Amino acid sequence: MITLNDCINSDAQDPIARLRDQFALPDNVIYLDGNSLGAQPKSAAMRAQQVIQQEWGQNLIRSWNTAGWFDLPSRLGDLLAPLIGARPAELVVTDSTSINLFKTLAAALQIQAKKYPHKKKIVTERQNFPTDIYMIQGLTAWLESDYEIVLVDTTEQLTAAIDTETAVVLLTQVNYRSGEMLDMHSLTAHAHAQQALTIWDLCHSAGAVPVDLNGCKADMAVGCTYKYLNGGPGAPAYIWVAERHLADFAHPLSGWWGHATPFSMQDTFTPTATIRRALCGTQPVVSLALVESGLQIFQQTDMATLRKKSLALTDLFIQLMTEQCPSNDLTLITPRNHEARGSHVSYMHPHAYPLVQALIQRGIIGDYREPSVMRFGFTPLYTRFVDVWHAVAALRTILETQAYQLNAVRHTVT
Amino acid sequence: MITLNDCINSDAQDPIARLRDQFALPDNVIYLDGNSLGAQPKSAAMRAQQVIQQEWGQNLIRSWNTAGWFDLPSRLGDLLAPLIGARPAELVVTDSTSINLFKTLAAALQIQAKKYPHKKKIVTERQNFPTDIYMIQGLTAWLESDYEIVLVDTTEQLTAAIDTETAVVLLTQVNYRSGEMLDMHSLTAHAHAQQALTIWDLCHSAGAVPVDLNGCKADMAVGCTYKYLNGGPGAPAYIWVAERHLADFAHPLSGWWGHATPFSMQDTFTPTATIRRALCGTQPVVSLALVESGLQIFQQTDMATLRKKSLALTDLFIQLMTEQCPSNDLTLITPRNHEARGSHVSYMHPHAYPLVQALIQRGIIGDYREPSVMRFGFTPLYTRFVDVWHAVAALRTILETQAYQLNAVRHTVT
Repeated sequence: MITLNDCINSDAQDPIARLRDQFALPDNVIYLDGNSLGAQPKSAAMRAQQVIQQEWGQNLIRSWNTAGWFDLPSRLGDLLAPLIGARPAELVVTDSTSINLFKTLAAALQIQAKKYPHKKKIVTERQNFPTDIYMIQGLTAWLESDYEIVLVDTTEQLTAAIDTETAVVLLTQVNYRSGEMLDMHSLTAHAHAQQALTIWDLCHSAGAVPVDLNGCKADMAVGCTYKYLNGGPGAPAYIWVAERHLADFAHPLSGWWGHATPFSMQDTFTPTATIRRALCGTQPVVSLALVESGLQIFQQTDMATLRKKSLALTDLFIQLMTEQCPSNDLTLITPRNHEARGSHVSYMHPHAYPLVQALIQRGIIGDYREPSVMRFGFTPLYTRFVDVWHAVAALRTILETQAYQLNAVRHTVT
Repeated sequence: MITLNDCINSDAQDPIARLRDQFALPDNVIYLDGNSLGAQPKSAAMRAQQVIQQEWGQNLIRSWNTAGWFDLPSRLGDLLAPLIGARPAELVVTDSTSINLFKTLAAALQIQAKKYPHKKKIVTERQNFPTDIYMIQGLTAWLESDYEIVLVDTTEQLTAAIDTETAVVLLTQVNYRSGEMLDMHSLTAHAHAQQALTIWDLCHSAGAVPVDLNGCKADMAVGCTYKYLNGGPGAPAYIWVAERHLADFAHPLSGWWGHATPFSMQDTFTPTATIRRALCGTQPVVSLALVESGLQIFQQTDMATLRKKSLALTDLFIQLMTEQCPSNDLTLITPRNHEARGSHVSYMHPHAYPLVQALIQRGIIGDYREPSVMRFGFTPLYTRFVDVWHAVAALRTILETQAYQLNAVRHTVT
């Protein structure tokens, strides 16, 4: 049986325990939702003041050049690159994940249509985050094409579903609900063997698990910066395109920021040769600038160290749940094998919603996802082993006292 | 001849002079570029701290509900509505102007294609801000349709160009370069007489001139919040759809924020019935929240008062330029008649670029636009009549001493 002392010892031996000090976490809260909204780097508050009072307030319009506002999407992309196996100048931070999904999907379909016009399948998972599916639906409905959207029901069926008719495969590496991690390397290789292109959504993996886009020969990728990357609520997303596709990378959102010479004010769109062709319009500078505060913390460690701690945290959580909460109503839906696990762990329970509410009332913040899923994120940058202990202990108490029943009633009547 | 004393008197009699105190303007700067990036409301710095330290840092994920983050696009839209002749719940603040142009254009073309499939012309101005043209080009190229983009060369030719073959008219009310203001009412009426739909880009008019979208029976509109609305660098844009079109308003950027039930995690996109169907993905909350700081200042005055002062400022500038800078090389390209003038004034000059640089070196910030245009914005919320005097006096000195020649050389060699 694991003890609280074991957890205290694990924290004492944690080589990156000190990084927690760089986050402004509230007292009396155990935050297990960094996979939804990452915690606030302390430096973000000062950075915001610098951008607002100095760059905007005092230097005004000049800051587009002097403060490098116009270059921010590229500069942040360069900082992010090593975390996802990309090279500098291969990605930009811009717009939202949904918008970037649209750009990559449109570009990938066009590349494929020129080479393999017979390929009409777009393969994704039915359990993918809904916006990934919606963006496919939105684009294909608009094209009035005969594309077929293949919603694969289980990950085991993915390989068989990616066949010679497949144009594009759009997958989220770590599933937002189950925490299951797909094998990017083998799925990309299989897709390529079928002459299909891959778009990887890294929302739940970047900053949590090592990602090697170039090593996997992935084609395109997108992701958000507000989860494990701690960029701030709704912070702009990123978009990556493999160098070999860049010259052919075209999308309908051809705004002036993607122009070869944006300030020459020409009346014809000519895309720049660089990854900045993935940009569209003017970017929200204050939110964008704060992404840097999150990325800078990653420069003080490396993804291998973070992954090791992440697995230790999720292993601990699963083990403690087994030992402390032996309820037959709890079903682990996150894989036990490390290769298939991201950095969050989910359990189904018939009373998942009121259970999560009861935990939140005790300062333990996880979240609920339809249907009947309790989801707990373990951000290795700031989650302590003792946090895991206390979270499970609280859940045990709630289950044993059935304190969550009160919430179930509340939920029904309000 | 107008004197400095006249300007001092005008400021003394200005009923909204006190509003300038709400902006953090730098000392020793005369800021005549609020039409490009509006000045910083003092309240924005504190609002950012509240969002970052309290809402993000302390309340974390809970702030999506408790701080109203998810509702921000709607709440800000309601605040903005009265400035542009819209009703609450008719617009949302979201994404960039370019992205919103794409949504409106896609939706308008689809509405028209169903009713009038023969209409294939999209009419805009060659002198429109380039991204407006680029977004038309991007969308139509993608549709592989036979749409014809009509780039009208002069505003006088606009009415004739909008004919029975016209599907959509996309116009910017106040031209970013010349400051010329189009007659939204008559152009919209003419477009409707031809069964064409209108999309109005309000980037250079919202907050500067009275806009009456519903009074003009406009169809759709977009605009940015970082110019006269003082929302912050690159702050999210807005999108407005006339109520009569809302049920038919569909666009390909069908992300989860536009879903009828975004948290039910369905695998099929069903748009919400409200204007929130114009939303796509997660929004940059910090930048979005600061838009409120700019909009709150407008609640202390009204657009009629602002327009009166704006015209007085631009009248003064033109008059002083005539009196103080009688150079034959200066050509006013902004209309003298009030009905056709926005809130900025532009002159062409063969040495426009070095002249603007020389002014900036003296703390007078206007800007340069290709080709050979000096552009000066007069934001009625914070520009003083004496600012206009000192700006013209400085330009006079620069012209008389030919101090700008030095900049011309510098510009060439660096």
